[in-house]
Amino acid sequence: MPLTALAQQLRFLKEIDGLKSVVRQSPLLDGSRKENSAEHSWHLAMYALLLHEYAVGPVDANRVIRMLLLHDIVEIDVGDTPIHGGHAQEEQAERERVAARRLFGLLPQPQGAELLALWQEFEDAETEDARFAKALDRFQPLLVNVVAGGGTWTENGVSLEQVMSRYGPAIERGAPALWAECRQWVADHFARS
Amino acid sequence: MPLTALAQQLRFLKEIDGLKSVVRQSPLLDGSRKENSAEHSWHLAMYALLLHEYAVGPVDANRVIRMLLLHDIVEIDVGDTPIHGGHAQEEQAERERVAARRLFGLLPQPQGAELLALWQEFEDAETEDARFAKALDRFQPLLVNVVAGGGTWTENGVSLEQVMSRYGPAIERGAPALWAECRQWVADHFARS
Repeated sequence: MPLTALAQQLRFLKEIDGLKSVVRQSPLLDGSRKENSAEHSWHLAMYALLLHEYAVGPVDANRVIRMLLLHDIVEIDVGDTPIHGGHAQEEQAERERVAARRLFGLLPQPQGAELLALWQEFEDAETEDARFAKALDRFQPLLVNVVAGGGTWTENGVSLEQVMSRYGPAIERGAPALWAECRQWVADHFARS
Repeated sequence: MPLTALAQQLRFLKEIDGLKSVVRQSPLLDGSRKENSAEHSWHLAMYALLLHEYAVGPVDANRVIRMLLLHDIVEIDVGDTPIHGGHAQEEQAERERVAARRLFGLLPQPQGAELLALWQEFEDAETEDARFAKALDRFQPLLVNVVAGGGTWTENGVSLEQVMSRYGPAIERGAPALWAECRQWVADHFARS
């Protein structure tokens, strides 16, 4: 039994408990509080499990689920980056790469390197699996805002055009059938508000 | 595009947002609050992703991950059942079966039936995948209690013998190598306390 490997894996599993304390901008659907990044990751994995037939091309749902389970763990070190925040993107990306190397570096090899590569694939958003994962990561908060009657859009004074430009490309690129639905929801939402 | 199927899937995905409001007995590792069942499900999926080599036999890690992502969603209807609670087990199991049929019944077929079968497989704990998933579902809170210096054991006046009998069989049956570690942690914990 590789005891040293197990000790490394348990150290990683303890470390990522911190993702439960990273608070996002999106609320729960009942509006009782903001969502954290651990439960967001769980929910996105369920989206992938159920909705992979709407991906732009053939995807490996199991790889997409794994990608989404770990896509946010860098936030343990660098925090959440709100979509409506206006952050310096390249600087943030570099901080996230440093965090990914630290966190996945806690694991035994080659396990750590494999997960780091999967995280980087998500970030690069070039493969069909990653494009679909990225689409879901935009689709879920859009759905929350529609159900919540505005949510972070209202809080941040976001316009119809900004919703289209900030969510549209990523969702359409990975899941065009879902984006077709979203367009209608967004149009209806802004027509009402 | 199967619009009706998508509407059913989205209704299910909205419904399971409720798992984020089901509070468990176990704390976060930093002690700041109790864990909820959605973030617990995320964490267990990460345990499965990393630790499947310690399973009692060959397991399909992707199936175990899926099983753990959905193993607790019945709690949306019936709440969490604490391990140290002394509940009427058969009555609780029947309430959970009713909840599973309602929740997975929201989905289009055959998707709903497939996930209901996967949930039932977890509950039955007969296949190697399910035995390993059950082992992790006991292993994670045990690890939390050891790290937290007692946690729910201290709160409920649980003895060394009760820890051995309430956690041991499930962990040993699905992941004997992990149980060998646990035995030592538990012995050390009760020797100190």
